[in-house]
Amino acid sequence: MSDFSIGVDLGGTNLRIAAIDDRGRLMEKVTFGTKTIVGRDQVLNDMCTAIRQTTAKYQTNGTLLGVGIGLPGIIDMKTGMMRESPNLPGWADYPVRAEIEKRMNTPVILENDANCAALGEKWLGAGRHVGDMLMLTLGTGVGGGIVIGGKIHHGMSGMAGEFGHMTVEPEGNPCGCGNRGCLEQYSSATAVVRMAREVIAAGEAPGLKKAASSDVEFSAKEIYNLAIQGDEGARKIFRRAGRALGIALATLINGLNLEMYVIGGGVSSAWEAFAPSIFVELRQRSMVWAATAPVDPLATPSGASAQVESVGGQQTIVTRALLGSEAGLYGAARLPIQRGC
Amino acid sequence: MSDFSIGVDLGGTNLRIAAIDDRGRLMEKVTFGTKTIVGRDQVLNDMCTAIRQTTAKYQTNGTLLGVGIGLPGIIDMKTGMMRESPNLPGWADYPVRAEIEKRMNTPVILENDANCAALGEKWLGAGRHVGDMLMLTLGTGVGGGIVIGGKIHHGMSGMAGEFGHMTVEPEGNPCGCGNRGCLEQYSSATAVVRMAREVIAAGEAPGLKKAASSDVEFSAKEIYNLAIQGDEGARKIFRRAGRALGIALATLINGLNLEMYVIGGGVSSAWEAFAPSIFVELRQRSMVWAATAPVDPLATPSGASAQVESVGGQQTIVTRALLGSEAGLYGAARLPIQRGC
Repeated sequence: MSDFSIGVDLGGTNLRIAAIDDRGRLMEKVTFGTKTIVGRDQVLNDMCTAIRQTTAKYQTNGTLLGVGIGLPGIIDMKTGMMRESPNLPGWADYPVRAEIEKRMNTPVILENDANCAALGEKWLGAGRHVGDMLMLTLGTGVGGGIVIGGKIHHGMSGMAGEFGHMTVEPEGNPCGCGNRGCLEQYSSATAVVRMAREVIAAGEAPGLKKAASSDVEFSAKEIYNLAIQGDEGARKIFRRAGRALGIALATLINGLNLEMYVIGGGVSSAWEAFAPSIFVELRQRSMVWAATAPVDPLATPSGASAQVESVGGQQTIVTRALLGSEAGLYGAARLPIQRGC
Repeated sequence: MSDFSIGVDLGGTNLRIAAIDDRGRLMEKVTFGTKTIVGRDQVLNDMCTAIRQTTAKYQTNGTLLGVGIGLPGIIDMKTGMMRESPNLPGWADYPVRAEIEKRMNTPVILENDANCAALGEKWLGAGRHVGDMLMLTLGTGVGGGIVIGGKIHHGMSGMAGEFGHMTVEPEGNPCGCGNRGCLEQYSSATAVVRMAREVIAAGEAPGLKKAASSDVEFSAKEIYNLAIQGDEGARKIFRRAGRALGIALATLINGLNLEMYVIGGGVSSAWEAFAPSIFVELRQRSMVWAATAPVDPLATPSGASAQVESVGGQQTIVTRALLGSEAGLYGAARLPIQRGC
């Protein structure tokens, strides 16, 4: 008999709902398309129906502690509304929390999706045996979250963790945020494709050119596939992505001196292609890394017992995420459990 | 009748000791030369004698809560020793805390001097009315400290706050730490003088050249004096310093979303010369700043009541320090009071 919570991961494409018990064991998971065209009210109805059905199934075994919802945008913690939601039209300035609490009669906690992912990796993933950590999520953009004392560091107005907009090249590529040279311009999936198109246009990458011309959906994944097949043009792209990550991580390690830095999101599946460049930069750029690095940072087996032994509060670990796209869902489910603690 | 604590600021040049009551009122302050030539044991004797005399004078009025000591180096919090102390020869790996506790029979807390300065500004200076903050100390180098929940964020191994070694120009000036383009290479007193010598060598700054040739101790202060007199070469130096600070602060504001960022240390007396360039960079480089900036960030009167009213948890304040060289001393005294809380 275990108490449980409902985690919800509401993205622009999918709505996922999971019942997870307070020890982190998955009880059930369902996935829907988010039907952004059908609109907010339909998504809300689907969500509440699924939560109700799932809860009904398990409430004989334990108490529902609440519902945690991860959303792609900036959350106003006081009002329980999204301030901006470019990927969820119609959700900004709508009383999401109040509406769901009213329908479900249980506590609801909203959280930014990148923060949820960080919390999920802390609870059940790469960071489960360490103290404080942060996570970079490399997707269409680059998001981030900081977990200190087991809880998300929100900052003054819920905007902390915008690591995608750290300046890594002061005169670098223009970013949609108004800055130049943001991390996101080098280490997101979007940036990987852009950089590939740049080297193709410069006539420097025949392998990439061939792949791009034969495929209308030329993606970061394909560029990664070329890189692991040894294509030099593709490998160079990931070295650039790794260099930018290394510059950003060196600054974060020097400034925050956390125990672990987790790299997640879709692009992190190309870990082998960009991670060596991260460590080249860290060795040069971070005195705190130099004083606390493991002997062979790349050899650190994520999540294996060797890693658990190696972290005793004195080694800095930079590693890939373990939960894949589930991190945000698990982190969302953690929120009501944590508040109950 | 107030309880009190003793703060000690042990630098390479001066040893300062102050008795401060638990409401932050200065009771007494003494300053000695640190006699680094005479050596550690003499400095320790002077320190303990002064602490004993001061305590004897005030202990009829209240209880001594302990002694807080700010030191220029990395402190091992567990052992109470300095790991490295380039400015205090003979102090590394010496049991400072144990030795003073034995002699004084009162709790002793060691802390890095830049962290003490941040805590001092939080307690009694620029940050006294705000929540979380960090401070950059622009001196010979650039140090820093983060105060979250009223306490110093130490990180995993006491090394957090090394903001002087954030990379602001990936291919910039080489730094003693092994990196290139560290903040410290543009915004420290040392950097201001180096940049001045560079523009003199390039034949670009007749005013600076004249000042440098007529003075063997060509200092950041003189370059500042030229800047406020309108010398374009000198003004350009401080614009570069401000630009680097702006790049670094944009990253910190995006990542941490704190309420206040305080600029202290000797170079901060040139605030008027470099601050405008900080805000130019912030407007371009930080989306969190853009969402939370005061209408006129330069007009914010540090410490005045207008500022107090303006911070309600939704505005980001970047401002100069208020306590000057006293910040570290006050912060050191805060440590035993805080532990008693």
